[in-house]
Amino acid sequence: MKKFSKITIIGVGLIGGSIGLAVKKRRLAKVVCGVGRRMSSLKKALKKGAIDVATLDLESGIKGADLIIIATPISLIPQYALKIAVLSDWAKTETIITDTGSTKEFVVKKLEGILPKTTHFVGAHPFAGSEKNTASNATADLFKGSKVFVTPTKNTHKKSLSKVKAFWKAIGAEVVQMPPKKHDELVAAISHMPHMIAAALVNAVSRDMIKFVSTGFRDTTRIAAGDALMWRDIFLSNPKNALKSISSFKKSLDALERAIKKEDVGFLMRQLEAAKKKREAIL
Amino acid sequence: MKKFSKITIIGVGLIGGSIGLAVKKRRLAKVVCGVGRRMSSLKKALKKGAIDVATLDLESGIKGADLIIIATPISLIPQYALKIAVLSDWAKTETIITDTGSTKEFVVKKLEGILPKTTHFVGAHPFAGSEKNTASNATADLFKGSKVFVTPTKNTHKKSLSKVKAFWKAIGAEVVQMPPKKHDELVAAISHMPHMIAAALVNAVSRDMIKFVSTGFRDTTRIAAGDALMWRDIFLSNPKNALKSISSFKKSLDALERAIKKEDVGFLMRQLEAAKKKREAIL
Repeated sequence: MKKFSKITIIGVGLIGGSIGLAVKKRRLAKVVCGVGRRMSSLKKALKKGAIDVATLDLESGIKGADLIIIATPISLIPQYALKIAVLSDWAKTETIITDTGSTKEFVVKKLEGILPKTTHFVGAHPFAGSEKNTASNATADLFKGSKVFVTPTKNTHKKSLSKVKAFWKAIGAEVVQMPPKKHDELVAAISHMPHMIAAALVNAVSRDMIKFVSTGFRDTTRIAAGDALMWRDIFLSNPKNALKSISSFKKSLDALERAIKKEDVGFLMRQLEAAKKKREAIL
Repeated sequence: MKKFSKITIIGVGLIGGSIGLAVKKRRLAKVVCGVGRRMSSLKKALKKGAIDVATLDLESGIKGADLIIIATPISLIPQYALKIAVLSDWAKTETIITDTGSTKEFVVKKLEGILPKTTHFVGAHPFAGSEKNTASNATADLFKGSKVFVTPTKNTHKKSLSKVKAFWKAIGAEVVQMPPKKHDELVAAISHMPHMIAAALVNAVSRDMIKFVSTGFRDTTRIAAGDALMWRDIFLSNPKNALKSISSFKKSLDALERAIKKEDVGFLMRQLEAAKKKREAIL
């Protein structure tokens, strides 16, 4: 792909930092600029080699950028979009703007409303991460083999969509394209629901008991150690689907509960066997 | 510890097979005998080197054994105990009998009722395992660093209790002693509940969605691939505590659900932060 002259990453945590490292490893930009709210985070990213230059000043950060990636918690994305819209003369630059928010309908609607039509916004969600989410844990290969959802709408600029897809492919990701609405239903079921369950499970167990836990409990709850702010934003920006997922999970748990209560040996066995078979099919 | 002359393991799956390998690696017995219901499982254990001799015949299997370990699914433990009681003249041998069942009140009460007083039964539960549960996956170090619950009652023979504890320590486990009732409350919370949740989560997600899952979903549901029969027995031999655990988990999940429904940003954040902090404290 054609090299970008300047890529600006707003928010250099695990995701932003890993994008920076991936871009630099593959020499996809002449310069990578990091914009943040705290110099301490930016310094971590600089030290890691994820960005070439760092600034707290958004205007100078985005000046001359032909790709801007907003990799902040979801609740901050509209604020940054608004500031970008106010600050810049987009009619000239035709900069591509993308994001990494874990829910897409909320973000895409907001940003299509805020950003001028001359900017080219393409919503994206790299489906990768870790419960350790600072730039210190960033790696150039975080996206290698992982999926990135790209969620265009009828307003999305075709050529910029292609460029954003090519960008993610270039840093190792497998691109999956789907509408924001479908994306949000999907991730509520396979990502929000596991997180809610892990958090609820940890909160349900007393500290006295926790010291005895073994590998099963550990694995089942690993993701509960993820960033609380990020997950709060995810749930609150996709509440309808999050609640729908809780509801279908509860039905599934109720079935097991009823079988134990009624000593329904056959039904319990069939439920556990169905789960085993389905889980084994996941590579 | 003093070498056993003959250790007999009834049921040579992952746990029984790993005990055999651990005993042989550390030369804790002159001979290790495996008893099973299918020659195919016994052959796996023989091939793996987990046992020296194999037999389908319980009587010849336990003849001369000074330690018998019943490592079958829970529902089969009382049947084997009954057969052992009928077959043997225990007044002479004072053989120690132990088991590896994941719930203890049901097993201990049953076996104390079945076995003659001249036999020395000590209930045990090695808190180790894997979703892959045949002898082919057995390892000599499965118990290294893992906990083994030993659950004596007022009827337990003191010297045999010490011997069983020494046996588990000798194969690398950390012995935790507690009454059967307390054990069953504990494992319902930290082991049964995670399994129920993992199974319910897998069953709640459609096959269409499952192909998109990432590491979070994978880890959260790994244990759902565990043996269905083993888990059915676990739930049905400890139903009261299993249901109590489901109930406290549901309360915890309901709290998150309410916070999302009401958009209670502060409460949601506090719940997620509490879970994060508690999870991080688990090594």
